[in-house]
Amino acid sequence: MAVQTVAGTTQSAASPSPGSADPHEDATGDKSFGPAAALSCRECGTRFPLSPVFACQECFGPLEVAYDLPLGDPEGLRRRIEAGPANIWRYAPLLPVPAGVAERPNLNPGWTKLVRADNLARELGVTGGLHIKDDSGNPTHSFKDRVVAIALEAARAFGLTTLSCSSTGNLAGAVGAAAARAGLRSCVFIPADLEAPKVVMAAVYGGELVAIEGTYDDVNRFCSELIGDPVGEGWGFVNVNLRPYYGEGSKTLAYEIAEQLGWRLPDNLVVPIASGSQLTKIDKGLKELIALGLVADKPYRIYGAQAEGCSPVSAAFKAGHDVVRPVKPDTIAKSLAIGNPADGPYVLDIARRTGGAVEDVTDEQIVAAIRLLARTEGIFAETAGGVTVGVLRKLIESGQLDPAEETVVLNTGDGLKTLDAVAGTGPTATIRPTLAAFREAGLA
Amino acid sequence: MAVQTVAGTTQSAASPSPGSADPHEDATGDKSFGPAAALSCRECGTRFPLSPVFACQECFGPLEVAYDLPLGDPEGLRRRIEAGPANIWRYAPLLPVPAGVAERPNLNPGWTKLVRADNLARELGVTGGLHIKDDSGNPTHSFKDRVVAIALEAARAFGLTTLSCSSTGNLAGAVGAAAARAGLRSCVFIPADLEAPKVVMAAVYGGELVAIEGTYDDVNRFCSELIGDPVGEGWGFVNVNLRPYYGEGSKTLAYEIAEQLGWRLPDNLVVPIASGSQLTKIDKGLKELIALGLVADKPYRIYGAQAEGCSPVSAAFKAGHDVVRPVKPDTIAKSLAIGNPADGPYVLDIARRTGGAVEDVTDEQIVAAIRLLARTEGIFAETAGGVTVGVLRKLIESGQLDPAEETVVLNTGDGLKTLDAVAGTGPTATIRPTLAAFREAGLA
Repeated sequence: MAVQTVAGTTQSAASPSPGSADPHEDATGDKSFGPAAALSCRECGTRFPLSPVFACQECFGPLEVAYDLPLGDPEGLRRRIEAGPANIWRYAPLLPVPAGVAERPNLNPGWTKLVRADNLARELGVTGGLHIKDDSGNPTHSFKDRVVAIALEAARAFGLTTLSCSSTGNLAGAVGAAAARAGLRSCVFIPADLEAPKVVMAAVYGGELVAIEGTYDDVNRFCSELIGDPVGEGWGFVNVNLRPYYGEGSKTLAYEIAEQLGWRLPDNLVVPIASGSQLTKIDKGLKELIALGLVADKPYRIYGAQAEGCSPVSAAFKAGHDVVRPVKPDTIAKSLAIGNPADGPYVLDIARRTGGAVEDVTDEQIVAAIRLLARTEGIFAETAGGVTVGVLRKLIESGQLDPAEETVVLNTGDGLKTLDAVAGTGPTATIRPTLAAFREAGLA
Repeated sequence: MAVQTVAGTTQSAASPSPGSADPHEDATGDKSFGPAAALSCRECGTRFPLSPVFACQECFGPLEVAYDLPLGDPEGLRRRIEAGPANIWRYAPLLPVPAGVAERPNLNPGWTKLVRADNLARELGVTGGLHIKDDSGNPTHSFKDRVVAIALEAARAFGLTTLSCSSTGNLAGAVGAAAARAGLRSCVFIPADLEAPKVVMAAVYGGELVAIEGTYDDVNRFCSELIGDPVGEGWGFVNVNLRPYYGEGSKTLAYEIAEQLGWRLPDNLVVPIASGSQLTKIDKGLKELIALGLVADKPYRIYGAQAEGCSPVSAAFKAGHDVVRPVKPDTIAKSLAIGNPADGPYVLDIARRTGGAVEDVTDEQIVAAIRLLARTEGIFAETAGGVTVGVLRKLIESGQLDPAEETVVLNTGDGLKTLDAVAGTGPTATIRPTLAAFREAGLA
């Protein structure tokens, strides 16, 4: 019943396949990478055996996971998923993980709430249905738990013993927590000037936390050096040498949205852009769902959301360019502040192909959107959630998104981690504890 | 099939029952309070119609909800629960809420993870199985979302239009968020000297937030005044006049633990004590599960956990007293800092009846336990979670809890809200971005 399909990637029939030579099989015959068949170059389609590499040896293009997906029995697959655990492992048949993954110690992220946002819809004039996919419900309160969980399984399969990353916050906490629970060493690299709460959360799980005197770009460059050095032997950098696996975690957002809507696709999705990887993997996940027959095939539009202070993809989209020109970020949405987004060109492709768009909002609009979402739906989003909700408003006002259609907006993080954005928020009144004072303050 | 049972309460057959005169039925015949039949005095057993009152008119004892529970078909009930939503509303047949509650706009808390804590068990020498019930996964990241969700339904049923509370933090956020989503006005009262992050979170949902110049006790006293005044007309104070309904939310912790263990009871539960209400309601929930035939009847021990700096119940337990002498709190575990816990005597009863105990830990032990839980299981708990894990360690060391038995420990809140407790936590090294610097720092 397993038929090869690689939704969203170019395939090269002549490229090498691990086939029966796959070394990734444990004593019980449980394949370490489940339905994953190979790594495939996104640019030239050349295939490589599953290993901790991230760039094509032929053309230096990015590698992604190619699958032998379980086609041919959509009803059986749907039942299997629905009977699975209330976390991302319900989708193990569609991920590069072993079938028994749910039994291993990990943080079991995912299956976060898809919140029907009728109050917000009213404020924005959306009549076709509006939902927030709220990933603040993940174990360390951001979507990063999804991608780290998959990277962790790859690290285990490759026998890597240290889990690492460069991070500006959310990823650091997710890696530290996942490694602690899995019993792996962790060593996380951050810029030295990070906000105190994110530093505390990155450090509390007890792994190594190394502050680098430099920018996030300096941290990244240093991590690439480490991978090439004998010092980095046995290290899994979740967002570098494990990136092909890591990225697949974002597909689960697409799967969950479709399943939580009753196995169907929405008309529009509004997704934040940092590196752009999440958006491209959501598109990949949606295409897989269609290919597998789990949802009816229908058009959908994917919209990318950036902060104006770091909007290279939005700028390219508006200018009609295929190339993304790097920028120096300056925005409160620090989790999206990647000035040179690796997947930027793919994001442009997807936004244009699906009939979506890429838009950006100012820091003031981000803060207003955080407050709007909190006031209408009781969801306290981090700045990235302010970006997507703010962009939704702008897309509607500019006529780029049809409010009569059904839309899903992502909130990928938690307001508690970016308190500074709404720091001015406080009591509406301060009074003595008497009824007279209460009345005087005009509260009665 | 409905047979009257009120697990854990004294019943008075002669007391008034709302019976067929129940006004709480909507146009569809959906009873606003589901299986709830009356309020019942915990001291004298006198029953009163369901209304927004909290003290017995006969003896001033606390009122709690009495039920007509669905006895007689445990298999059918179990199937109904298992087919329900992944939140507390799966237990709607056992709560004072209408059958269709899941369709209303609320935060849908609950069904948080029960984490198998093998690493922590090894460190503490637990061989019988150890689990963390991690309520940091709730929408506003504390167990308060459970109790507020039930109080909100009561407010709706009684036609109250303002949701209110006195709070030192977690409750303020939970009420603000729930009211926002439900479209109710909210007015939350806090002491003026609260920590900044909790103030921001309490305020961000856009309701009224009133800072009171005084202690938490002053805030509480003022709220009681407001209820008696015409100004408080139409107000539902979740932890005062809606307290009987509010408290029932804690039963869902017992239900979830049992269901997540595969419909069975653990040997031991370690529960934090603030007012003591949560512990008493967990006991009530466990007894209901047995009465309903959803789990096999077996002994269980309930252990209460306090901070040494606010340990009136622990002191009474150790002294063999039935009476709890109020104290002035001084501890970093502020969410447990209630010096005069209303349910203290009931906690003593339950700890003694079940063969448990009440124990306390110092602030230093709380911080060490927060770090231990983070390092072993990747769970970043608030100070209250440090209290329960620290008390578990102490109970084992002192021989009060048998490590060969199965134990469930509650973490009721999120470390991001009490960052000060681990404020010293930071990078293990700060270096320039070079391999030489990395080696010099001894990190290679």
